[in-house]
Amino acid sequence: MSDVAVGLDVGGTKALAVLVSRDGEILDELRTSTPHDAEGGAGAATGKVLAEQLVTFAERHSLDVSSLPIGIGMPGMVRRDGRLAFAPNLQTVSGASFPELLRESIGAEFVYMENDGNCAALGEYAWGAGHGVENFVMVTLGTGIGGGIIANGELVRGQSGFGGEIGHMVVEARGTLCGCGGFGCWERYASGNGLARLAFEWATEGRLAELTLKRGGAQNVRGEDVTLAASQGLEEAIALMNEVAWWLARGLANLIAILDTGHFVIGGGLSTAADQLLPSAREYLAELTFGYDKRPPIVVTPSGLTVHAGALGAAKVAFDRQP
Amino acid sequence: MSDVAVGLDVGGTKALAVLVSRDGEILDELRTSTPHDAEGGAGAATGKVLAEQLVTFAERHSLDVSSLPIGIGMPGMVRRDGRLAFAPNLQTVSGASFPELLRESIGAEFVYMENDGNCAALGEYAWGAGHGVENFVMVTLGTGIGGGIIANGELVRGQSGFGGEIGHMVVEARGTLCGCGGFGCWERYASGNGLARLAFEWATEGRLAELTLKRGGAQNVRGEDVTLAASQGLEEAIALMNEVAWWLARGLANLIAILDTGHFVIGGGLSTAADQLLPSAREYLAELTFGYDKRPPIVVTPSGLTVHAGALGAAKVAFDRQP
Repeated sequence: MSDVAVGLDVGGTKALAVLVSRDGEILDELRTSTPHDAEGGAGAATGKVLAEQLVTFAERHSLDVSSLPIGIGMPGMVRRDGRLAFAPNLQTVSGASFPELLRESIGAEFVYMENDGNCAALGEYAWGAGHGVENFVMVTLGTGIGGGIIANGELVRGQSGFGGEIGHMVVEARGTLCGCGGFGCWERYASGNGLARLAFEWATEGRLAELTLKRGGAQNVRGEDVTLAASQGLEEAIALMNEVAWWLARGLANLIAILDTGHFVIGGGLSTAADQLLPSAREYLAELTFGYDKRPPIVVTPSGLTVHAGALGAAKVAFDRQP
Repeated sequence: MSDVAVGLDVGGTKALAVLVSRDGEILDELRTSTPHDAEGGAGAATGKVLAEQLVTFAERHSLDVSSLPIGIGMPGMVRRDGRLAFAPNLQTVSGASFPELLRESIGAEFVYMENDGNCAALGEYAWGAGHGVENFVMVTLGTGIGGGIIANGELVRGQSGFGGEIGHMVVEARGTLCGCGGFGCWERYASGNGLARLAFEWATEGRLAELTLKRGGAQNVRGEDVTLAASQGLEEAIALMNEVAWWLARGLANLIAILDTGHFVIGGGLSTAADQLLPSAREYLAELTFGYDKRPPIVVTPSGLTVHAGALGAAKVAFDRQP
């Protein structure tokens, strides 16, 4: 039984690697840009980056890669057998089998894959803001919305392992087109992309007059401009953040109706704007939740593990699954 | 350990009681109208009806009510402690505690309550169309939409026991007003009520010309007229049933994204129109489901226990929980 595991969190822009002890302490950490070239077949370039990270850890800490438990969190539909079925935001790795790639390249024997949102949920359940909560939902607000569901103390992986793709729950039938090909997905309204889209829409409609003037045109108003201006008290920006918070609450209320979740852990890049989103979202929940006043208070809390949630959860997966 | 249990399924119009063996065989059955008078306090009138049903079974089959396991399925939010927190469609029983009422009136000691959709899910899981399927969703298309979720082989009851209220998942943000006070709930589009509402809307817009003429006015076109006419091949009626099927698929696709459910069991009153709904709904699922072609085929099957699903599941609850 290994004292340490490696968690690898592969995102659209960077691959984060952590070396983790059994009690969730991060002992070492590496960050590398995610390559987007398709050379060598599905996932080859990314597999090379991960192999380098693993070898670096092994050298620095005198570890044997062949016995090391390694977990990988991937943004996409990860099948129960570990193969990546579909990664809409990381096309070059769709279909890749990293366990095979890493066995062939560096002799790693214990490599386990899981969806990144599911990893984050498992990480928060083990060591973060969902610790000991038998029913909660992890919501990662990044470019899109990912997540993972813990019900009855277990991860809901579903039939094929694709559970927790909550960002593709449709909240506006026949709404705006999503990258997945669907219309009206939650992540078109309450994610980083959703904020950017709404900012452009509002700017075009003249509802972000000051920001548009400052940035020299509606097309230049970015999501970051809105969150910054809102934090500085600009009313038009606060109004837009409230709109995003309403959409966030709309999706959370749906998950409450379906799962009777009383606890949400909010992570991901956009959660840095948590101060501007979560208080309003909590208020909107009161009006949007079915039977709100019959339920105990609903907790909406920022991630305890922040940017490390996915990588830590991937390490937890490896600890749990290594025979 | 009792060889038999009683399952009571309390609906808005009738209370169905079944006497059930351990292998799910129905040994006896009673149906009584659900009373809607509020006299005697929350649930008193309904409690009296249930007590009479239980006494009838006890007399007919020489059973001792005090040791009999009794399960009750209720349409509403049933707390884990067995109290009914909220029953929007059965106001006179909101807040009632039937375990207490039945202990006081007839000395029943082992009375367990559960939401009716959850009961149906447990019934189908034990003895019906979800038998042995570790991840499936029961969808009851009645006046509204109820349901129950089985994930990892267990019922998802959630924090307070309110899990599975899938009909109040919003699929059209700021859509039509629902009885729950929300807007755009799934059950406003794909239930018996949804069909009736759409029928009136279509008739008013002149899209059900033949039916409107036949029934002598848009206000007279009922849901049943549409399902009957559709079964007889009337095109305008088939078109409306396809619209309902689209909305049905819209909600199912959301549940697939969230839970990775690969198996749906469809029950409830409207499922008698299954022949007209399910084939189209299955086709729409192909275009509405996130990553559809990466998943194994999705099963959408009619209930195996039909009108008895809830009552049988309530009996299963009683078998499982009696110490």
